[in-house]
Amino acid sequence: MTQFINAKDALVTEAIDGTLRTAGGRLARLDGYPHIKVVLRTDWDRSKVALVSGGGSGHEPSHAGFVGRGMLTAAVCGDVFASPSVDAVLAGILAVTGKAGCLLIVKNYTGDRLNFGLAAERARAFGLKVSMVIVDDDVALPDLPQARGVAGTLFVHKIAGALAEQGADLDTVTAAARKVIEGVVSIGMSLDTCTVPGSPKEHRIDAGKAELGLGIHGEAGVEQVDFSGARAAMEMVVDRLAPHMGAGPHVALLNNLGGATPLEMAVLAEELVRSRIGGRISWMVGPGPLMTSLDMQGFSVSLLPVGADEEAALAAPVAPHSWPGCLPVDAVPVVPLPDGLSPIQPLPSAHPATRALLERCCDILIGCESDLNALDAKAGDGDTGSTLAGAARALKGALDRLPLADLTQLYRAIGQELSQTMGGSSGVLLAIFFAAAGDASAGGQDAVGALRAGLDRVKQVGGARVGDRTMIDAMEPALAALPGGIAAAARAARAGADATAKITRAKAGRAAYISGAKLAGWNDPGAEAVARLLEKLSA
Amino acid sequence: MTQFINAKDALVTEAIDGTLRTAGGRLARLDGYPHIKVVLRTDWDRSKVALVSGGGSGHEPSHAGFVGRGMLTAAVCGDVFASPSVDAVLAGILAVTGKAGCLLIVKNYTGDRLNFGLAAERARAFGLKVSMVIVDDDVALPDLPQARGVAGTLFVHKIAGALAEQGADLDTVTAAARKVIEGVVSIGMSLDTCTVPGSPKEHRIDAGKAELGLGIHGEAGVEQVDFSGARAAMEMVVDRLAPHMGAGPHVALLNNLGGATPLEMAVLAEELVRSRIGGRISWMVGPGPLMTSLDMQGFSVSLLPVGADEEAALAAPVAPHSWPGCLPVDAVPVVPLPDGLSPIQPLPSAHPATRALLERCCDILIGCESDLNALDAKAGDGDTGSTLAGAARALKGALDRLPLADLTQLYRAIGQELSQTMGGSSGVLLAIFFAAAGDASAGGQDAVGALRAGLDRVKQVGGARVGDRTMIDAMEPALAALPGGIAAAARAARAGADATAKITRAKAGRAAYISGAKLAGWNDPGAEAVARLLEKLSA
Repeated sequence: MTQFINAKDALVTEAIDGTLRTAGGRLARLDGYPHIKVVLRTDWDRSKVALVSGGGSGHEPSHAGFVGRGMLTAAVCGDVFASPSVDAVLAGILAVTGKAGCLLIVKNYTGDRLNFGLAAERARAFGLKVSMVIVDDDVALPDLPQARGVAGTLFVHKIAGALAEQGADLDTVTAAARKVIEGVVSIGMSLDTCTVPGSPKEHRIDAGKAELGLGIHGEAGVEQVDFSGARAAMEMVVDRLAPHMGAGPHVALLNNLGGATPLEMAVLAEELVRSRIGGRISWMVGPGPLMTSLDMQGFSVSLLPVGADEEAALAAPVAPHSWPGCLPVDAVPVVPLPDGLSPIQPLPSAHPATRALLERCCDILIGCESDLNALDAKAGDGDTGSTLAGAARALKGALDRLPLADLTQLYRAIGQELSQTMGGSSGVLLAIFFAAAGDASAGGQDAVGALRAGLDRVKQVGGARVGDRTMIDAMEPALAALPGGIAAAARAARAGADATAKITRAKAGRAAYISGAKLAGWNDPGAEAVARLLEKLSA
Repeated sequence: MTQFINAKDALVTEAIDGTLRTAGGRLARLDGYPHIKVVLRTDWDRSKVALVSGGGSGHEPSHAGFVGRGMLTAAVCGDVFASPSVDAVLAGILAVTGKAGCLLIVKNYTGDRLNFGLAAERARAFGLKVSMVIVDDDVALPDLPQARGVAGTLFVHKIAGALAEQGADLDTVTAAARKVIEGVVSIGMSLDTCTVPGSPKEHRIDAGKAELGLGIHGEAGVEQVDFSGARAAMEMVVDRLAPHMGAGPHVALLNNLGGATPLEMAVLAEELVRSRIGGRISWMVGPGPLMTSLDMQGFSVSLLPVGADEEAALAAPVAPHSWPGCLPVDAVPVVPLPDGLSPIQPLPSAHPATRALLERCCDILIGCESDLNALDAKAGDGDTGSTLAGAARALKGALDRLPLADLTQLYRAIGQELSQTMGGSSGVLLAIFFAAAGDASAGGQDAVGALRAGLDRVKQVGGARVGDRTMIDAMEPALAALPGGIAAAARAARAGADATAKITRAKAGRAAYISGAKLAGWNDPGAEAVARLLEKLSA
């Protein structure tokens, strides 16, 4: 089994129950399992024209997902890709139809036509007013009079649904549905076949190919075409649809056939709007999964000419969340970048003692390069020494433009330099360290207090603490000891760094992915760098 | 290329533009392409606490799909599975943050922590109030302190978003976010890996296996488990989550990782509610795609203990359609089947002439069985004769219970008999024929007029007409000639049936799929049956 289902026979009833349980009480079903699978509104009083649709399952959210105020009154669900029985359709009609009558909305597949058709006859024999429309929006097969009904059916559900909800009579609702059916055209394209539950997947479409003009039951497209990307794909689809477009503005429905990702669907939306018919598309429904074909990695585009009546009906709010709304197609609103992304350069200032300290720190780190690289090679890619030495060299070159006389600004400026010159996580972490130290200094902390605040932020952002085999193992004890002098800090850092050699399970950083045995006996290179820096400073 | 994309480098910017164009003007982006990809609300005035989230792309609708009133103020989008840069995050913060400050909601991945963390520092240096929370809801790795942030992040977006929208201050919003993070737990399961654009798909999970405890970037799950169906799968997930559940009622978020079908997700919803923790789940978000991993055929479950505050925040309406709502979990409402499905048996009545006519018709059709089968074998599966003969035998056996003296009831009763004894499309079509004839008879039509009304309905429902190589080719001219007597009707039927031998392109029924050359010279078996019936009757 390669799908999240149980027994194939129970698939549709279990799925319907799952759907109903998570519908917040808005939907019910008829007590006719397993053969009669009808989903209906719980807020229905039969006072208006009922809309009943349905067909085989595997097209979710069609059709049960569109049952609710403003759309369908009931959905009659067959098994996967199989028409529901006459009895099931009749049960649906009888359950929801009052004096105002009922419109059956049927996709043009033989089984659906026949089962819904006979159910309509039987319902009429009860004296019910039942009309039926057959949707045949697929333009894939231009010379076949029996065009299939595909995702354009959603326009019928929505527009007829809005009218019925407003209280229009059966003739009016039926006429509006027929007008939609006359105008709507659809075509689909897919990069792969769908996986029918319980059946092996058919591999029919080679890499580099796509099928154009397919139905929603896994039947092959009318042709295989070369596939070279989203833009060319949408152009082919547009070429098939354009000759059928009516005059004036259109609404487009961009349907995910199931397995296309939201990223792909968004790219296709962009291509549709940018295509040669984009200027004639005023409204869009989707992109989204509306009438799927199980997990088919494909899409379909449906187009309908719209006047004011259709626009109003399409825009009317509905209860089913599966309806994504019908929104005006817009240019992309673009907002200027905010000021402040290019950091203001601090005013350089001189402070010989600070300059000398910084230079010495840099030289020490440069001197440790090969030792630290060798140590890092035990756990990582052997570049800790080079990363720190490179940053130190860059910082030395920047001393002339640093605000050396203003500690707050200096911390921030060092943070900025490091974020621009040091790659990888360590660069960002040290940048955070100095930026937070600068903030704390601006807030009144002394030099050591500010560094401690920097460390706190690094721990929060990086998620590491003492014992995790990182630079923090030396830094934290050193900063704690620093008020007692640089020598005390150096001793504390050394003890902390040496302790990392006994930590055989790193909990943060790249060493977390290295086996403990490989780490044993070697100091963490970041902690070692801190210890060496302080030892040489205090020497 | 196996995806609906163009150049990989432009994927995310094209997808964002497609998303914005179809958002009805609700969303904008910063003018920072290609490096700065920030989506933000167009209706934002900086008067409230801003919520900024984001991370790598490939998780749609996260995060841009959740930007809007009541949820995020801005989403900072990286490339697929790659953290956005510090500059991009900073641009997002600066673009939306006013005096009320900004909360950064970050998933616990190193790159996101660091880039959002440093951006926060830089924003604070501008004097902005910025707080940051790190979501670590994944319980797949119980002993790793750095748990990943996955779909439970949506609870943070929603609850913090509701508070911010109500005007709560930054401390209140941050505290609420932290409380959610303390309580929320998640775990995922998948049947397949995801397809990273531009990379070959990794085949890591064999048939019959699933991965449990996976992140959202294609990294392997913590273990491979045997997969034996949706129920057992959900039980494993529940086993991992149950020890982490708090007291009291919970809300569940059932997330499609991208490639599971709506049918599968609905079955999983049913299994979750039926599981041993189902009774403790009072609310559900989904099922639906909320934080995907491209096209991964998997799901995740997130659980959060809820009190009245969380319930209110989760239920508050929001602008982003990607949020499916948070609905109470219900028992499945079941409505009794309507009356009328078991058709009322008509009162039998005697009418010797009608009985004799019906018997003769039946005998004629029984006599044609092998001839019609042979003819049908040219175009179909050779069973037209048997189907008609079987129905005729059944009808003969039913004569005693038919209302022979009441033509209206008789037509309807024959329709009912045929729908129950004749298989396939032809059974349904003949049932429709007689049911509609009965209706027309009830409406005052004479015997022949009623039969014509039946034919009209068959043509409408079946979508076939004269010339399509069906039974109609004989029936329609015969009914037109019938007022002139049975012999005239027989001659018309014969001419119509013989004409079908020249129709080499069938337009309806199964013969539509047969090549014309195979059909040439052979009468349609249905039309032939009508002609033979009338010829023998008139003989």
